[in-house]
This record gives sequence, C-alpha cells and structure tokens, in this order.
Amino acid sequence: MNVLIVHAHPEPQSFTTALRDLAVETLQGLGHQVQQSDLYAMNWNPVASAADFTERANPEYLVYALEQREGVKSDRLAADIRGELDKLLWADLLILNFPLYWFSVPAILKGWIDRVLVSGICYGGKRFYDQGGLAGKKALVSLTLGGREHMFGEGAIHGPLEDMLRPLLRGTLAYVGLEVLPPFVAWHVPYISDAARGDFLRAYQARLQGLEQDAALEFPRLEQFDERLYPRTHPL
Amino acid sequence: MNVLIVHAHPEPQSFTTALRDLAVETLQGLGHQVQQSDLYAMNWNPVASAADFTERANPEYLVYALEQREGVKSDRLAADIRGELDKLLWADLLILNFPLYWFSVPAILKGWIDRVLVSGICYGGKRFYDQGGLAGKKALVSLTLGGREHMFGEGAIHGPLEDMLRPLLRGTLAYVGLEVLPPFVAWHVPYISDAARGDFLRAYQARLQGLEQDAALEFPRLEQFDERLYPRTHPL
Repeated sequence: MNVLIVHAHPEPQSFTTALRDLAVETLQGLGHQVQQSDLYAMNWNPVASAADFTERANPEYLVYALEQREGVKSDRLAADIRGELDKLLWADLLILNFPLYWFSVPAILKGWIDRVLVSGICYGGKRFYDQGGLAGKKALVSLTLGGREHMFGEGAIHGPLEDMLRPLLRGTLAYVGLEVLPPFVAWHVPYISDAARGDFLRAYQARLQGLEQDAALEFPRLEQFDERLYPRTHPL
Repeated sequence: MNVLIVHAHPEPQSFTTALRDLAVETLQGLGHQVQQSDLYAMNWNPVASAADFTERANPEYLVYALEQREGVKSDRLAADIRGELDKLLWADLLILNFPLYWFSVPAILKGWIDRVLVSGICYGGKRFYDQGGLAGKKALVSLTLGGREHMFGEGAIHGPLEDMLRPLLRGTLAYVGLEVLPPFVAWHVPYISDAARGDFLRAYQARLQGLEQDAALEFPRLEQFDERLYPRTHPL
C-alpha cells in the first residue's frame, strides 16, 4: 500500500507525534510506502482564499468550490495544494493523526481538508459517498484526547465519540468516497503514566499490522436515494 | 445586549457577508451594542502554537491547554488572542456567521475557537456544559450551505444537520456554558434566485428581532453526572 500520514500537533515531542513515528516505522516494516505531511513542520497555510488559484475563473466574485473545479481543469491550483493533492491521489490509505481540539480536528488540519479535498476531483455533482472521487482508497483517523473513555458512549456526558466525529468521518472522509476504518483513540493522554502510553503504542501497532482485515464503517450509498437525493422510500 | 459577531467568509460580496451586515444593522436598530471580528479582513491566524504565549510556563514541552491556563493567570496570552477574548467576555450574545465547509466551520473560524476559547476562563476542571465559564451568555450560529434542505433530517442522505453540527453546538458552544439557540440556516445559497435570497434575509431579520424569546437547545447538565462524571444512574 501507499500510505499518506497527515499529522498535526504543535509539540514535536508529543505522544501524538510518537503515534505518527510508530505508524511510519510499522507500515514501512510491513513493506508499505509511506509519505508524510507534518502540517506544523511544513508551516501549512490553513486558510482557504482567492490566493489558492494562480488565475481565477471569476476574478470578480469568489465561489471557492467553483474555482477549485476550474483550477483542477486548468491546472491553476496553488503549488502547496497541488503538492498535497498529488500525495493524496498517490495514497491507498490516508491516516489523519491529531489531538482532538474541541471534539474536532485542529484548525491547521481543518485547513488541509478545506483546501486539498478539491471539488472536481474528490467530489462534485453526484460523486459523493460511495460514488466519491476517492472511492477505492481507505482512511484511518488516529487521535489523542484528554477525556476519559467513560465520558463517551451512549448515555455518557459527551455521548458517543463517533457522533462527535460525524462531520469528519461521514461528512468528509466517507463523503469523498473513502472507506473509513474505525478510529484509533488514545484516551486521557496528558494525564496517564508512561506505562499506559506504552500500552496505547502497542495497541496502535497491532491495529496497524491488522489494518487490511479491518471492516469499514457503514455510511449512505447513493443507490439508496433517488435522482433528487430523496430516500427511495420517500412518498414523492 | 452586547453582541459579538465572528464572521468568516473569503468573499466580501458574499451572501454570508450580507447576513453579517443585516445582523449588525438589525441589532443596532434594536438598541444593542455590536462588535465584529471579520476574520478574513483581520487576517486572523488560526494556528494554535507556542507563539500564542509571550512567555511559557513550560518552555520545554507544549501542552496547549495548560499554557492557556497559565497564560490567563499571568497575562501572557498573545495580543490577538487577548483582544478577541476581551470582546467575547464583553458580549452577552456570540454570533458565528459562516459558510459550511465540510459540514463544519471554515479553518479560519476553527482557529478562532482553538485559540480564543481559553482553558482557565471558558472552561477547566468541572466548569463545562451548564457550569462552563461563559454561562449566562448566549450563542447563535448563522450559516449558509450549498445543499438543499431535503438532504438533511432523519432518513435524509446527510442525516440531521444538528447531528453534523454536534461538535460545534454541543462540543464547543454548549461546552463553555453558552445557551445555544437553534441555528439559522440559509440552504442551497449558491444556486438560488435573488428573490429566494431576499426571503432568507427577511427570515433572518425576523429571527434576530425575536431572539430574546428564543428557547435554547437542550444539552447535558453536570448535576446529571456524579463526581467522576458517570451518569447518576450508572451501577458504580
């Protein structure tokens, strides 16, 4: 497999970074090719703007997704976006590796999503969910958080973690056609012992070693909906 | 009321910007005080990093939330964060006004959340949800999106919009203690007629005029959980 790891943590010595390093080592050890995008180290610009196009289809009024579509066709995407897009298209597996900030990705990673998952390639028209532009590739989210495991789940104070991750797992990764594997989660990381962190590292390594057998999460398929995207059971 | 509008759209002529302008005019017309943070115009830096602290409690290893807590105590937050935090603390109502990017906020706005909602003031320890540091204030999300209304809701292709907005409405705004009002949503905006946009503007104005009567959404209250944050009905 070709694997792209997109990593976003402001502290190079962090446990989240150790997960990234372990993934590189483990996946290479299994014979996979690995590329990385260390967003903090790259000083990645997360702000979607008019500057993302070397020339504009409509210089008077910016509709970002439309400019992406034109930019893809006419090779007018900014170089930093094009570079990341090429890595993404090369990859069979995308790993997003980050600390949970506000039950979501850090802004620098949100800006990778906003700018790199371009309309016209990753999605567009009726190409989304199982018909998305990245269909055939897989995605894994590996994240660290401060909360304890019992604070998540049905009836727990924050509800199921998967529900909090819905815009990422379903609205982003599944939307562009990726087969989304169950997230790897390291709980309560800033507060646990080195031994407990070691347990998470071993669990992550075992997970990475068995990745090709992992069953993907279930998301909508376009065949369940009609031409206007109403559910096929809809009375209309 | 004191109102802070945080606005994030890369096109100054956008309909999302028209919503912002309308909110300023309508709320001022009602006698409220309004401040704005136009994140694109301000060239807001969305990237949480070590540079957010004029001096570090621990210069060797960055734990971002811990540095926030120390930075608040010792007045060591970067000037741009302090400026936004002061506006937020002044406000009785926070309005987040943005186009939906990947079922979530644009990265520049995520970075406002990551950097401005500092630990030690907005939350910390057992101060979250109804006990959050911003309890007593309200929040309204006003957003535009490309999708049609029938693509959202139970059984619809994307499910309920509120479920996609969960990390924002519950995991962020309710988490810091804000009373979260139901979002204002303008659907399918890039594709509709000027008349249909006019309808959304009128609906938003009416909404703003009746805001003080709006019932807030329901979220967890800490009294429903025990000291270890297990639900009080938990067998332990």
